[in-house]
Amino acid sequence: MTKIKDIGEQGLLERLQRFCPPEIIGDDAAVLVTAPEQSLVVTTDVLVDGVHFSNMTTSPEDAGWRSAAANLSDLAAMGASPLGITVGLGLPGEVRVSWVERLYQGMTECLQKYNTSIVGGDVVRSPVTTLAITAFGQVHPSQIIRRSAAVVGDAIVVTGVHGASRAGLELLLHPELEQNLKDADRKTLIHAHQRPQPRLDVLPILQKILTPNSCTDAINRVSTPNSQLPIAGMDSSDGLADAIIQICRASGVGAILERRQISIPAAFDHWLTQEQALEYALYGGEDFELVLCLSQESASALVEYLGEGAAIVGKITPGSTVLLHDEQKKFPDQVLSLSQGFQHFNSYEL
Amino acid sequence: MTKIKDIGEQGLLERLQRFCPPEIIGDDAAVLVTAPEQSLVVTTDVLVDGVHFSNMTTSPEDAGWRSAAANLSDLAAMGASPLGITVGLGLPGEVRVSWVERLYQGMTECLQKYNTSIVGGDVVRSPVTTLAITAFGQVHPSQIIRRSAAVVGDAIVVTGVHGASRAGLELLLHPELEQNLKDADRKTLIHAHQRPQPRLDVLPILQKILTPNSCTDAINRVSTPNSQLPIAGMDSSDGLADAIIQICRASGVGAILERRQISIPAAFDHWLTQEQALEYALYGGEDFELVLCLSQESASALVEYLGEGAAIVGKITPGSTVLLHDEQKKFPDQVLSLSQGFQHFNSYEL
Repeated sequence: MTKIKDIGEQGLLERLQRFCPPEIIGDDAAVLVTAPEQSLVVTTDVLVDGVHFSNMTTSPEDAGWRSAAANLSDLAAMGASPLGITVGLGLPGEVRVSWVERLYQGMTECLQKYNTSIVGGDVVRSPVTTLAITAFGQVHPSQIIRRSAAVVGDAIVVTGVHGASRAGLELLLHPELEQNLKDADRKTLIHAHQRPQPRLDVLPILQKILTPNSCTDAINRVSTPNSQLPIAGMDSSDGLADAIIQICRASGVGAILERRQISIPAAFDHWLTQEQALEYALYGGEDFELVLCLSQESASALVEYLGEGAAIVGKITPGSTVLLHDEQKKFPDQVLSLSQGFQHFNSYEL
Repeated sequence: MTKIKDIGEQGLLERLQRFCPPEIIGDDAAVLVTAPEQSLVVTTDVLVDGVHFSNMTTSPEDAGWRSAAANLSDLAAMGASPLGITVGLGLPGEVRVSWVERLYQGMTECLQKYNTSIVGGDVVRSPVTTLAITAFGQVHPSQIIRRSAAVVGDAIVVTGVHGASRAGLELLLHPELEQNLKDADRKTLIHAHQRPQPRLDVLPILQKILTPNSCTDAINRVSTPNSQLPIAGMDSSDGLADAIIQICRASGVGAILERRQISIPAAFDHWLTQEQALEYALYGGEDFELVLCLSQESASALVEYLGEGAAIVGKITPGSTVLLHDEQKKFPDQVLSLSQGFQHFNSYEL
């Protein structure tokens, strides 16, 4: 059982090089070719053992996949295609080399699915296993998706179901919950937690739907440099409620959500109460779907393209309140606030 | 004395926003404009409290400056101009908010000097203060500096003195060493450790010297896309010996260094033995100078441009041995190897 302290930094770096494209190894920094007229998009995440992942619920492969997926999801949320990631690792000497290799295996499995790779990194000694990922991507300036561009009347679209990742985590932490659940459903929910899919696949669909005359005239598909796609959005990594509240704050608008339109996993139906299901969907976090605000017409087209799970869940309103509404009036209107949201830093005692 | 746990992640992020350009705040990722026909250069460093910095020898401002400088130096080593950095922070709740603000103050002081800024980041809870910096730069493909391009006959140039940073650290750790040192010299050496200067200033000089007809014809200053600048190099962050050995390994060559040509701080003269001074210069590390291999003619021009501290310290030879030579023959030839070098991971017990 070889440990990090047995092979040192150089030994570990040599073993990890097989996870990187050979052409980027060996200099002080990695060099990447970017397409002309694209802007660079950069995002970074720090993950700490015991805070953001744990060997109890997460294999090193899954921790790797999830950390890569979270960063790719941030790129997708901006409308950007990935160029690569860098990985900074802090490791206690007692960590097994195989643990690190399995972590990298999980990261590269996720990255390969989206045609990207680890292009650089750093490995250092640390008393606690720490993973710092920076992802960079590129986007044409006209196709940047920002939180601040929602306008009154926009439909709010989710690209998939919410609550699955949180349910999967609960099943891992409390296996006794699986009693009333079909085995296939249990596996699906746990998979949603362990192997979330960043929605980079949504980007070409958005271009198709939002670019004028896209169906009739291929030449017009590329919008002119200064015309901004009529869309706002972000990802739902910190929960669906958080995403909608953040978009509303940044755009200076409010929103009304239709309680029964929020798409949840089919498995929830006979397993959770309506309230519990809604709680997971709104505040569970880490589903890594996109929450997008766009015209009603475009929203309908998008939901149709995306199929199952995608839904129009509400619309943008004047004011600043985010309201949860029940069209069947069984539940009173409820104001959503961030204080119930998913905040890594505050959710643990410091 | 406000602590992180008193204000939480959101509170801290709000306070840190004043260190970032306002236009990049508020989305899932930062957007940066890159120049056309430039390649993207990316480098990342992880720094851990107690391993890479310590409150004993380093104020938070200096820790911030040094971490930014180290990353900018990696960009300079590739020939790239900085576009920005991202900062990932892991913090125990007990850390003072003012400590973090002072860290950011030091980082931005360094970045401002080189017309760049913090463009994104992440703040999370961690049992140990951890700083993960990723720096982005751009370079025209023809002007990339690589380790692997050294050829036999090249002169080896250092852009400044070596050993100063290490001497500064020793003075901080062992104040009694300052007895035989003038106060101004002591301050200069400590400053070299606390506020190292990444040598981005060398890049325009290299372009001027290495681009054909640069003095006589301004139009020719921009080299054609496929002509590579005739240069190899890296920075000396892990020590001068390490830099030369790494370049030789990557280029499949050897080198001979002239012991008396290696430029050291003037303060060493009556303070250290020759052997101690050489030890600091070769293995001290963190001077963040550039070590460059180029034709004898270009090397002479470069050293003249750079002035004091810059020197031709040796030349590239066939074979694979890196030899330390004494032209006065008082010392026998000595083979340099990495095992004496400066390796963060191995230099501590794991």
